[in-house]
Amino acid sequence: AEEGELSPVATEDDALYQAALEEIDDCQSQIDSLNEQASEEILAVEVRFNTLRKPHYSKRAEIIAKVPRFWITTFMNHPQLSLTIPEEQQHCLQDLQNLLIEEFEDIKNGYKIILKFNPNNPYFENESLIKEYRLEGNGQPKSVVTPIKWKPGKNFLADNADRGSRKRKASDSSFFSWFTDSNHSSLDEIADILKDEIWPNPLQFFMMPEALSEEGDDDGDVED
Amino acid sequence: AEEGELSPVATEDDALYQAALEEIDDCQSQIDSLNEQASEEILAVEVRFNTLRKPHYSKRAEIIAKVPRFWITTFMNHPQLSLTIPEEQQHCLQDLQNLLIEEFEDIKNGYKIILKFNPNNPYFENESLIKEYRLEGNGQPKSVVTPIKWKPGKNFLADNADRGSRKRKASDSSFFSWFTDSNHSSLDEIADILKDEIWPNPLQFFMMPEALSEEGDDDGDVED
Ligand SMILES: [Ca+2]
Ligand SMILES: [Ca+2]
Ligand SMILES: [Mg+2]
Ligand SMILES: [Mg+2]
Repeated sequence: AEEGELSPVATEDDALYQAALEEIDDCQSQIDSLNEQASEEILAVEVRFNTLRKPHYSKRAEIIAKVPRFWITTFMNHPQLSLTIPEEQQHCLQDLQNLLIEEFEDIKNGYKIILKFNPNNPYFENESLIKEYRLEGNGQPKSVVTPIKWKPGKNFLADNADRGSRKRKASDSSFFSWFTDSNHSSLDEIADILKDEIWPNPLQFFMMPEALSEEGDDDGDVED
Repeated sequence: AEEGELSPVATEDDALYQAALEEIDDCQSQIDSLNEQASEEILAVEVRFNTLRKPHYSKRAEIIAKVPRFWITTFMNHPQLSLTIPEEQQHCLQDLQNLLIEEFEDIKNGYKIILKFNPNNPYFENESLIKEYRLEGNGQPKSVVTPIKWKPGKNFLADNADRGSRKRKASDSSFFSWFTDSNHSSLDEIADILKDEIWPNPLQFFMMPEALSEEGDDDGDVED
């Protein structure tokens, strides 16, 4: 008799408990669906503004290309980036005429860093060096780089290796080592600086007062 | 004569150079203004969806409050959070009837974590314990907590200190130590777990299969 009384009560409790969990699950589905809608709307805003920003970036690029040594000056005025650019690479980057960041059409999938050089530069044949950061289907980041076609005797990365230690690849944290390294590595800090600090506003680094930059006077028009 | 020839050329070059920088600056202003508009539109989407989500969160809270030990079960099924809840705190958190995260109206300014307890709980008089995370004007995070009104002899934080080491405050990384600590500290990982992992979907932790949780069977309705 006691078992007979307990059983229906337990069943009723179980039913109430199950019903509560299902109601919570229903609320959760509504919340999830709103979260998804919000993400889509935010993505749409970002895509729309990318399109609106594009002509201004293009015009900026066009004018910047006319200013001699704009990018090397900008890079050397960046406190961290300047540390990755040894003398020979500074010389090579004098011929960097444009830096462009292009997000993929589906901006969640990645972006490209495009470096456009003076085609007459003494170091390599390439006019554009492109480093792509893709997010693979499994969520893993992957990078793909343009192979550099060095002019004879001009590969300063190989030169270094010949002259010095065999550990160059592991220990060299220079700008061009970063570019040529297609492993996702600690050097990707350079990609972050280019994408998140330089690209949004390069002029602020280009114009940085002498006192704040690592380099001395090399533009000849400072009155001192 | 040579000086006379050089000077106008230099002036013309300087003028072109200055004009280029001004044009770059104009592009930059347009880009900055678009960035600002994009941020405002994204914020507006977030605010709008917060409003749309609110009734579903309220309904969820209402139903959850009817499920005994919902929050302590959820917390104990979270792999990291469970490690911060020693036995006496587990007992106390049996009386946690609701957890709510409320963003400030200007969501950039901060949020509150609200813990609603059974007012008849044996440990303290408070019905709600609130921990606020504010972003101050200077961008520094600041937190403000409800002082706990312990019932006589029930302050398990003070008890610990009496019984054991004087270093409790520094070494204790328990749930209630986190709550009472108003310094922005490493314990704020607990706030992140509550806000970013538990709050968006507590049911997934509540329902987590026994095998994945740290705790054994304590809900009595598993067939084994
Ligand atoms: Ca200079
Ligand atoms: Ca259990
Ligand atoms: Mg450019
Ligand atoms: Mg709730």
